[in-house]
Amino acid sequence: MKLGRLNHVGVATPSIERSLERYRTLFGADPHGEPFDLPAQGVRVCFVDAPNTQIELIQPLGPDSPVAKFIDKNPDGGQHHVCFEVPDIAAARADFEAQGVRILGPTRVGAHGTPIFFVHPKDMGGVLTEFMESPQQAH
Amino acid sequence: MKLGRLNHVGVATPSIERSLERYRTLFGADPHGEPFDLPAQGVRVCFVDAPNTQIELIQPLGPDSPVAKFIDKNPDGGQHHVCFEVPDIAAARADFEAQGVRILGPTRVGAHGTPIFFVHPKDMGGVLTEFMESPQQAH
Repeated sequence: MKLGRLNHVGVATPSIERSLERYRTLFGADPHGEPFDLPAQGVRVCFVDAPNTQIELIQPLGPDSPVAKFIDKNPDGGQHHVCFEVPDIAAARADFEAQGVRILGPTRVGAHGTPIFFVHPKDMGGVLTEFMESPQQAH
Repeated sequence: MKLGRLNHVGVATPSIERSLERYRTLFGADPHGEPFDLPAQGVRVCFVDAPNTQIELIQPLGPDSPVAKFIDKNPDGGQHHVCFEVPDIAAARADFEAQGVRILGPTRVGAHGTPIFFVHPKDMGGVLTEFMESPQQAH
């Protein structure tokens, strides 16, 4: 499997609204669509466009959110994960599993509506890494 | 100033060689050129290509390196910074300074040979952010 397109950098924030305000003030950047909830993942998300990729702002939906702990440790927010595209999520998962790479939980639908999974940071140089099926190749 | 191209994601590592081995094994990815030292910044760096951006692997050159503390806290390595391109580094610096954004140190030459500066994570949602003059627009 080749290293695919960097779909987005995931940035945790205590407040998507305050983060959007900063992007607006500093860069005149508007969000790519309105923020929306992903209750299954316990997060509210919003994308901001750079010319070649996106920033995914992620805010915990509540104290049980997996991102809540991150914000407790990093009250200003911070870099949370990176996400690379793959042509076929099932093939990517099988390939990683065959190589002993630890995958976190089941394959599920991500913020872009295509299947995704996360790989354990311990197996990716300390970087929490998401793999998502490319939108143009989704079934 | 508009949000520019994401030139790279900076990933700190205790060993560039071991990180490269992982990219090679998992993705068949070769480095974009050999690792090289940036003694003025106290780091050894190496780039790996994704189709739309790069990963910058950063290894501390010694215990006094600014990245050494990061590796002490994150022995596996981890996400260190993101870097966006700007057309004119002096204009970007003046623009940020006028808005009260804290810039870390002087403008200096970065790993791509063009002028760069870093912005304080406190002023960028907890994300250490580098701005670099686009190579194609460098003087």
